[in-house]
Amino acid sequence: MQADAKAVHNRLRRIEGQVRGVQRMVDEDAYCVDVLTQIAAVQTALEQVAVHVLDAHVRGCVAGAVSEDGDQAAEKLDELMAAVRRFAKVR
Amino acid sequence: MQADAKAVHNRLRRIEGQVRGVQRMVDEDAYCVDVLTQIAAVQTALEQVAVHVLDAHVRGCVAGAVSEDGDQAAEKLDELMAAVRRFAKVR
Amino acid sequence: MQADAKAVHNRLRRIEGQVRGVQRMVDEDAYCVDVLTQIAAVQTALEQVAVHVLDAHVRGCVAGAVSEDGDQAAEKLDELMAAVRRFAKVR
Amino acid sequence: MQADAKAVHNRLRRIEGQVRGVQRMVDEDAYCVDVLTQIAAVQTALEQVAVHVLDAHVRGCVAGAVSEDGDQAAEKLDELMAAVRRFAKVR
Repeated sequence: MQADAKAVHNRLRRIEGQVRGVQRMVDEDAYCVDVLTQIAAVQTALEQVAVHVLDAHVRGCVAGAVSEDGDQAAEKLDELMAAVRRFAKVR
Repeated sequence: MQADAKAVHNRLRRIEGQVRGVQRMVDEDAYCVDVLTQIAAVQTALEQVAVHVLDAHVRGCVAGAVSEDGDQAAEKLDELMAAVRRFAKVR
Repeated sequence: MQADAKAVHNRLRRIEGQVRGVQRMVDEDAYCVDVLTQIAAVQTALEQVAVHVLDAHVRGCVAGAVSEDGDQAAEKLDELMAAVRRFAKVR
Repeated sequence: MQADAKAVHNRLRRIEGQVRGVQRMVDEDAYCVDVLTQIAAVQTALEQVAVHVLDAHVRGCVAGAVSEDGDQAAEKLDELMAAVRRFAKVR
């Protein structure tokens, strides 16, 4: 992930700003539906970061472990599937 | 929503702090899977705020419009269903 | 819902056929990714039916209860929010 | 996947039966909220099948391609991430 840690950091800063924007909307008593629309935008941005991190993880860590040795590979694949499950909200 | 705007604001502040925490993890080159777990926690917290706001909106605005007049009611119900659709990510 | 029960029924029949199609793919040892794509199509179709039923319910039952009396209204709104929560997979 | 194609097939048959059950509920004019609960159960069952297929795919196909050669590996990882994205409904 190293390579694009800076890009991920910047995206998260933008998300932090979006969350503050929602706070302001709530403080200024904005219309509920507008608040919900804004929260949905933050959720989309967060998902995109998560997929980005997952992508880097799969191509880096997981692929590395799989091509190198058997033991670590199984563990990495378990971890990966647990992350995917959590992500897709499958129990 | 007025009544619990303060509670929503506080939850959003906590979420803002969580997002900053994820930034720190990325800066300190934390393990990808731990970053993903943390992002998932932020997503859960955001969803809970969204449902809370939706709940207040349905019981306040929507129920109010429905019990008072026909015209506004249809509009509010359209808005509500659009929010639910976006929320459940149904196209 | 009565009015469009037939439409919902027909959509569900199509979904039943899609599920049978996925079974056939599995039997014929289709490529996993194609099976996943097909399952995703069924999920989308199911979601659309669910939103359709929810929409009819909100505009019929819920709006009716809200505009008529207070007691039933609260119960209907609780039920509605529980359905939305389940739908959006929010705990 | 071969190994558990039979298990996947059986789960899909059960899902087909569940879909038919929902049709019957609609025909018998069941309460909307009960229909929604039943549709949610079908969705959960479908997701579990999808995760099962994805799991087998990752441990079989993807891990195989990664440990064997570079070219196929990149393609398999692209496919995998596309499936995860679709699954988690991330655009």
